[in-house]
Amino acid sequence: MMLTLLTDFGTQDVYVGVMKGVIAKINPFLRITDLTHTIPPQDIASARFNLMTAVPHFPKGTVHVAVVDPGVGSHRRAIAIRCSDIGYLVAPDNGLISGVIDQLNDVQLSAVELTNSNYWYTSTPSNTFHGRDIFASVGAYLASGVSLEQLGSPISTDSLVRLPLAPVQVAETGIDGAVQYIDGFGNLVTTIPNSAVSNRDWLAYYKSAHIHSGKTYSTQSPGQILALTGSHGWIEIAVNGGSAALAMKAAVGDSIGVRW
Amino acid sequence: MMLTLLTDFGTQDVYVGVMKGVIAKINPFLRITDLTHTIPPQDIASARFNLMTAVPHFPKGTVHVAVVDPGVGSHRRAIAIRCSDIGYLVAPDNGLISGVIDQLNDVQLSAVELTNSNYWYTSTPSNTFHGRDIFASVGAYLASGVSLEQLGSPISTDSLVRLPLAPVQVAETGIDGAVQYIDGFGNLVTTIPNSAVSNRDWLAYYKSAHIHSGKTYSTQSPGQILALTGSHGWIEIAVNGGSAALAMKAAVGDSIGVRW
Amino acid sequence: MMLTLLTDFGTQDVYVGVMKGVIAKINPFLRITDLTHTIPPQDIASARFNLMTAVPHFPKGTVHVAVVDPGVGSHRRAIAIRCSDIGYLVAPDNGLISGVIDQLNDVQLSAVELTNSNYWYTSTPSNTFHGRDIFASVGAYLASGVSLEQLGSPISTDSLVRLPLAPVQVAETGIDGAVQYIDGFGNLVTTIPNSAVSNRDWLAYYKSAHIHSGKTYSTQSPGQILALTGSHGWIEIAVNGGSAALAMKAAVGDSIGVRW
Repeated sequence: MMLTLLTDFGTQDVYVGVMKGVIAKINPFLRITDLTHTIPPQDIASARFNLMTAVPHFPKGTVHVAVVDPGVGSHRRAIAIRCSDIGYLVAPDNGLISGVIDQLNDVQLSAVELTNSNYWYTSTPSNTFHGRDIFASVGAYLASGVSLEQLGSPISTDSLVRLPLAPVQVAETGIDGAVQYIDGFGNLVTTIPNSAVSNRDWLAYYKSAHIHSGKTYSTQSPGQILALTGSHGWIEIAVNGGSAALAMKAAVGDSIGVRW
Repeated sequence: MMLTLLTDFGTQDVYVGVMKGVIAKINPFLRITDLTHTIPPQDIASARFNLMTAVPHFPKGTVHVAVVDPGVGSHRRAIAIRCSDIGYLVAPDNGLISGVIDQLNDVQLSAVELTNSNYWYTSTPSNTFHGRDIFASVGAYLASGVSLEQLGSPISTDSLVRLPLAPVQVAETGIDGAVQYIDGFGNLVTTIPNSAVSNRDWLAYYKSAHIHSGKTYSTQSPGQILALTGSHGWIEIAVNGGSAALAMKAAVGDSIGVRW
Repeated sequence: MMLTLLTDFGTQDVYVGVMKGVIAKINPFLRITDLTHTIPPQDIASARFNLMTAVPHFPKGTVHVAVVDPGVGSHRRAIAIRCSDIGYLVAPDNGLISGVIDQLNDVQLSAVELTNSNYWYTSTPSNTFHGRDIFASVGAYLASGVSLEQLGSPISTDSLVRLPLAPVQVAETGIDGAVQYIDGFGNLVTTIPNSAVSNRDWLAYYKSAHIHSGKTYSTQSPGQILALTGSHGWIEIAVNGGSAALAMKAAVGDSIGVRW
């Protein structure tokens, strides 16, 4: 079985390596795939976007362990979710997994709080590294065939913490949304779905600039800004060979509109 | 079978993780090795050097997927190559793989353009992420036993885009070359092969400095510059415990000579 | 069998990828786990801490290959160690592995110098990349069943280079130690074990500041400093949501005390 890891632990220290050791101690035959470990520290919104973006491309049955956990050691819940379309999610209950869940339609979800310490790495977990002491261990057991129900007490999926995006505003002349993520290239991923502009001529409006749409980065000359339908499913603002984030001094949450 | 990945996608986002998900969906038993994902964005020359450096050290039959693709979505070709000495190369046809090919002697190469969308991740690929939609998918099928010929139309290997290095100039008193790569330590890898200085006393000339040659970094005192036969097969300029690139304000393409 | 890698080779170049290729050529079925490759260049003390922190969390029998090697190509020894509690360590003999060894109690260690070139990648290793030419190759053979004794000449474990920490000073009112490591979040890991403060009220003293102790980062308001029992087993100084290293201009070796 496959298990993925997404954290904000960075790659400078051995935090992630230690999680992999814990997993290998439980089951040395699991296949581990790193999603990313350089989520900005404690940035749940960034983790939410990246997990939501990656999960649909993995085989059904995969166990996704995600740990961005500013409340580690406090009263936030540790949870696991089973979803027939995906597999399993193991994470703190802080909104991190809400992007994945919001994208699902008509699927049956089951959730538990991770209260059964038999499946933890230690019955006396540290106060600062539940990635090692709880989440990696529980993920390894799940991927090895332990059932969700064994891991702890059932909880209502309605009780899970959500991190909702502001909904887009649809008008006759276009759609108003916002920047939901800025990627490592400085591309701005908006909350406006690609489907909004299919079979239309369109422009983007951002910080009083009109931005022409194009099919590929190279539609524009190097250094020029453009809007395009992004590979993740949302309208993006990009600079050919450069960073739209730097060029536009962009921030997550900035208003962006599309007009036709 | 083994599959390697080399990209400029960075490790901050889940682009690489998504490629691994696509591969696992096609064949969850493939073994994936990362070469590097921090090629400077769109730097084909750097990708060419790194791929050329890594490929000879992998088992024959390995599938190497390399995606540094400034022309994604435009008319550049997507290609796959079979080479008995190596295995397979899957990449955009922009010169990225030409270093690997230039190092081969007397081997039979076969090449196809990746026109058969049955082996893509989707028959309607995005315009900006062929790493996911074409290259990862085709690489996974190749590593799973699909033959090169099934992937698309045969093309002449003479038609492949090359990114040639300026040839070194051999004189009676030495050899003139250039910096072809600067590594993460600031070591300057030249285009002059180590074999040029075997069984000789020699000096390097760079920016009007005479640089003594040594066997190891520690031949020189900490902070001192030296020239040595590098582990990749070319003469290198290094600073013991420091960065020759910073010390010499070096750039790829700078002239460097060797004298005896 | 599992093999881990820890180096200062960075992730920008393909040095680590090449080591993985060498390992796969010897045995394509070995499972490789990265501990970290961004140890600061030539920082043996940082490598020592990270290796010591990770090794206990891996299955017994794992082969740990660690290469931070400022003396590469000079007269420092290349060594391998067998330890029943752990598995194997393969590294240059420069103190890198001494943290792992200092933590072991009453175990039998065997050590060899890696003099048998039959298990090297090449009988004429480069002067600058023993990670590829000796350590990766020897690690792969060890993980494939070659015995320690075949790898070279036995050496006394007493002769291994140590990198000892200054011992903590215990007084009636507390304990004086030092910063032994600064992690990627800017947390200061001290040399004072967590056990020193169990069942006590305590404060930390650092640079004439009194620092309150807490159970979790969120015990303090965002941006505030605190002391806590760390997940690695030592007292740590942290800033909730920030960097104690920046806030306190901290350096490895700084004196830190604990008082009750």
